[in-house]
Amino acid sequence: MNVEKEVLSNNKEKARKINELFKQSKIKSFNMMSSPGSGKTTLLERTITELGPKNVAVIEGDLETENDAERIRNKGATAYQITTGTTCHLDASMVEKAVDQINLEGIKYLFIENVGNLVCPANFHVGSDHNVVLLSATEGDDKPIKYPVMFNVADIVLITKTEAAGIMNFNIEKAIENIHKVNPKIPVLKHSINEPDEFDKWIEYLKNA
Amino acid sequence: MNVEKEVLSNNKEKARKINELFKQSKIKSFNMMSSPGSGKTTLLERTITELGPKNVAVIEGDLETENDAERIRNKGATAYQITTGTTCHLDASMVEKAVDQINLEGIKYLFIENVGNLVCPANFHVGSDHNVVLLSATEGDDKPIKYPVMFNVADIVLITKTEAAGIMNFNIEKAIENIHKVNPKIPVLKHSINEPDEFDKWIEYLKNA
Repeated sequence: MNVEKEVLSNNKEKARKINELFKQSKIKSFNMMSSPGSGKTTLLERTITELGPKNVAVIEGDLETENDAERIRNKGATAYQITTGTTCHLDASMVEKAVDQINLEGIKYLFIENVGNLVCPANFHVGSDHNVVLLSATEGDDKPIKYPVMFNVADIVLITKTEAAGIMNFNIEKAIENIHKVNPKIPVLKHSINEPDEFDKWIEYLKNA
Repeated sequence: MNVEKEVLSNNKEKARKINELFKQSKIKSFNMMSSPGSGKTTLLERTITELGPKNVAVIEGDLETENDAERIRNKGATAYQITTGTTCHLDASMVEKAVDQINLEGIKYLFIENVGNLVCPANFHVGSDHNVVLLSATEGDDKPIKYPVMFNVADIVLITKTEAAGIMNFNIEKAIENIHKVNPKIPVLKHSINEPDEFDKWIEYLKNA
């Protein structure tokens, strides 16, 4: 086995153990992945209010700063910030250390907000049940076919910042078509202040997950 | 030397040789890096028209598709598409192979449009003289301090899509301040349809590079 395969294999085994712990604790877990600045933290802020802050914990991944964990704490939920330095993704070891520091009692939903990167996090299991991928309407509707690895591992895609689709010449139907070229049956939702029904579907997805 | 260090060291040596070739051929070379969908190709399309298509060659890096190379060819410039599969950045070997396929005669400017990724490409030399980093106004003004590695290696930063700054609550002054926290003396320009003077400064930067 080469070095890369061994790293991925060890990581997968550690992720499996983390997932077992989540399952024993009856916690639903979600790995949130996207490019930088696609609105992961904003979506989580709104989601925390809807699910109830006491039910939610968030593990934040960034190269530097505690900014995102502070935003989550301001909403009343538990947050733990991982700073990766120069590493472009979270891995199971990092999440394991974070989970050790979090009081999981009463937590029903655990979100792992990965480093903003549309490539690398797709290859590293972090122990979650579900992979959630965000695509911002400001990034261009061709991104799913240019970055298929990420859309391939997704269990659900949210198209965010759709209020900017017009000014950015982003064709939402085309984007959904491109997502389905990579991952044919995946559910796709929209997230913006103008789409309250779609946000309700997201909350419903989390509750039924 | 560990495996990672050896890979980076071999890459650096190869990049040095590529750069020598560019210098002998009197070609100015630029490594364009940013998140996915920040407007690298759009900036290049406009730049090609201004510099003259015959003077420009572009090496495009994406996981999949020939889309960006086609956009460049439609502007009349030479383009070569590298598809990396699952690899999150270009490296010197990939660029070396691309350069072998390009007729460099008459080329004065060579742009290497890296894979959209605000982390990994920062660590891999590709043989260029200058690192150009784009930050889209849709990504949030805190990105420079959350992804310092990339802003640290930059020689110039362009803030793009500034026409969307208002709708996206992006504070341009705050973004510039954050860029300068990481890289104190770096020039910062804006790129949008509403900023013709700033585009002139970009062209001037390229001509004097």
